[in-house]
Amino acid sequence: MYLALYGQSMFGDLKGYELLEMLVDAGREGLNDEQRAAIGYISVAGMLAPQLNDQHLLAAAVAMDPAYTSLPIVGVGNACDSGGLALLDAAKTVRCGDTHVALAIGVEKMNIKKPGKDGKPPKTDSIKIGQMLGTAAHPDDRFPPFSFPHLFARIMNMYMERYGISEEQLAILPPYLYANAAYNPLAHMRTPRNPITVESVLSSYRLFQKDGETGEGEDLPLKLEECSQISDGYSRFVVCDEEGLSMLGLTKDDVTVLAGWGHAVDGLSIASRGDNVLQPVGAKKAFVEALRMSKIPPECIGVLETHDCFSIMLPLTAEIAGLAEPGQGLPYFVDHMMGIDSDLPTNTSGGLMAKGHPISATGLALAGWVHQQILGQVPVELKVSNCENGISLNIGGPIASTVCLAQYRA
Amino acid sequence: MYLALYGQSMFGDLKGYELLEMLVDAGREGLNDEQRAAIGYISVAGMLAPQLNDQHLLAAAVAMDPAYTSLPIVGVGNACDSGGLALLDAAKTVRCGDTHVALAIGVEKMNIKKPGKDGKPPKTDSIKIGQMLGTAAHPDDRFPPFSFPHLFARIMNMYMERYGISEEQLAILPPYLYANAAYNPLAHMRTPRNPITVESVLSSYRLFQKDGETGEGEDLPLKLEECSQISDGYSRFVVCDEEGLSMLGLTKDDVTVLAGWGHAVDGLSIASRGDNVLQPVGAKKAFVEALRMSKIPPECIGVLETHDCFSIMLPLTAEIAGLAEPGQGLPYFVDHMMGIDSDLPTNTSGGLMAKGHPISATGLALAGWVHQQILGQVPVELKVSNCENGISLNIGGPIASTVCLAQYRA
Repeated sequence: MYLALYGQSMFGDLKGYELLEMLVDAGREGLNDEQRAAIGYISVAGMLAPQLNDQHLLAAAVAMDPAYTSLPIVGVGNACDSGGLALLDAAKTVRCGDTHVALAIGVEKMNIKKPGKDGKPPKTDSIKIGQMLGTAAHPDDRFPPFSFPHLFARIMNMYMERYGISEEQLAILPPYLYANAAYNPLAHMRTPRNPITVESVLSSYRLFQKDGETGEGEDLPLKLEECSQISDGYSRFVVCDEEGLSMLGLTKDDVTVLAGWGHAVDGLSIASRGDNVLQPVGAKKAFVEALRMSKIPPECIGVLETHDCFSIMLPLTAEIAGLAEPGQGLPYFVDHMMGIDSDLPTNTSGGLMAKGHPISATGLALAGWVHQQILGQVPVELKVSNCENGISLNIGGPIASTVCLAQYRA
Repeated sequence: MYLALYGQSMFGDLKGYELLEMLVDAGREGLNDEQRAAIGYISVAGMLAPQLNDQHLLAAAVAMDPAYTSLPIVGVGNACDSGGLALLDAAKTVRCGDTHVALAIGVEKMNIKKPGKDGKPPKTDSIKIGQMLGTAAHPDDRFPPFSFPHLFARIMNMYMERYGISEEQLAILPPYLYANAAYNPLAHMRTPRNPITVESVLSSYRLFQKDGETGEGEDLPLKLEECSQISDGYSRFVVCDEEGLSMLGLTKDDVTVLAGWGHAVDGLSIASRGDNVLQPVGAKKAFVEALRMSKIPPECIGVLETHDCFSIMLPLTAEIAGLAEPGQGLPYFVDHMMGIDSDLPTNTSGGLMAKGHPISATGLALAGWVHQQILGQVPVELKVSNCENGISLNIGGPIASTVCLAQYRA
């Protein structure tokens, strides 16, 4: 199974670039007529489109392109792992022999606007966006309007308390990601308004604090610069088998092998996880499965792109991957996963935090960056030398649905 | 590929029966522990849950059941064909060898309530439901709050004008469906408040009329009793291969064969269809494909369950199926498809109009009724004798995404 022709829009607040246009571009940009004609199945993810863009049935929006009219096109997705699931669905359709070539699309138009105050320009409606994202949590775990930041702030707090980690120690993570994104031409945060430093992270807005007067609320450690971005954007992959490769006019130099994958879903409510919140069973299962199938030994992974929706996910990733013992993820990350010259260069793209996080585009973008690293297609400042393979970890909901993909050089 | 263990809740306004409970019941009711343990993959459709029930990530709600925790569970769906797509996805996962047994679930909790006036009990919020359903239309084709009734009223009007069909001729269809539903124990409209007759249909509320004073609006022929129901409910199928059959402890007497299928998606906007609105290319393609694959000759189809979201879909089905020439669908339906003793007994379940239409449960329920007809499990008043096979046609959006399934006796 090959991954080919990765395509991606800029990630960011893409004013004037609307959902239906993105969907058509995702199936058109960078693909020639022959390649488009080879596509026999399309999987499309756009989790928030019904709620933020008043648009369901994205499949038929894709079918507006005459090249894809009357094809089987299916909407797929759980939560922030929807892009990974679209890729797995496209791959499954090729695997079962229905087509030689399938297309997976992930798209999100998140930056919906509300009127600005006092004649100022319209502003991203983060309250509504937060509320809609929050519908991917169990009703018992809702803290509107920002359920997911709140949930992950609690996870961060739990992690820090259990393992004696300080805010200062975690604050080194965002600057690393922003430094990478500065070289990623399609990243949302190529040029942040202010430089992101340990100091700026620590002094950035604390999202959840106890009210000084009423004593209500929770003091939680999450700060604004430890959160991923609200981004618009699309990403897409073409998936094919051996015959599809020649139908696309490509050689093995143009593609990576989808060598292993895993997907597992845990119970929606935090309470249903018992003591496993910090050691998510499904996420570990997905990782182990992908690695086993790909036959890549853990110590030989070339690059890793992981789902840093909040910075705490970076040490947790090291633990999910079984590289670090519980509680040892942060020192492991710092010693072994940070930087293109490290043992396992992680989130060299800038990650969700600085590359951006257009929800349903993210899973494909994680695998897309791994693809580009293996093919040597990333800017030289971010390029990992001798990169033969890579893993992407795409997580949805309250660490509830995880897609792990393993790719290597064809 | 076998379809087994069809399960369904009552369809209707199921007060007090909530979405998360339905999702658990769909994977539990009528399945023993051994059968549940055999399931290796789950596909779940619940199109309107994010908009009507503020709930995304249904997959993780399914995973709350310990039997399904840490399994691969994927949300799937386009529009009203989402249930059919969940079934196809489950079947695809078995076909490609990932598991011997998969589960497909379709669920919808549509009857959300708004406060009643003057101390009356809460009332189904049909305005909000209509608006949310309308997001499956192209922005150019929206007529809020009831975009789909309006779109199908236009299609009905177009059909009547082009082929010289009268309202009186079409009004015979709903009474046929309600008469069937009266015997279907799980139907929404087993006992309608008033008997449904040609006269009641003709005198029922006309949804779209020109305003007498302002002259605004359109006079369109669609009447309330020609529309499907706003229903809550779930349906589910277990899909398996030969080995799965024995894992489930079943024999061939318990199952039907999924012998053919087709799925095709046309462009979202009505304008993009050109002259094909009344002869939908994708729907015809899906039907032809399913029939070809199943090797069932058109004249040998035993039963048909079709997507009568509005009564005009019954004559259109005869034309989509190629049984009748364009414009000849209604007389064909009346002469050949109406009644259990007809050539091709159609919607003996009562159809979406009278059995009910919980959006994402519908596709599975169409195939479920075919399954029950073949296995002789329907009430005697609705039983088609010597039924060896059947077809279901499940349509989403503005006749934009169609799933056709062919089943026969194992």
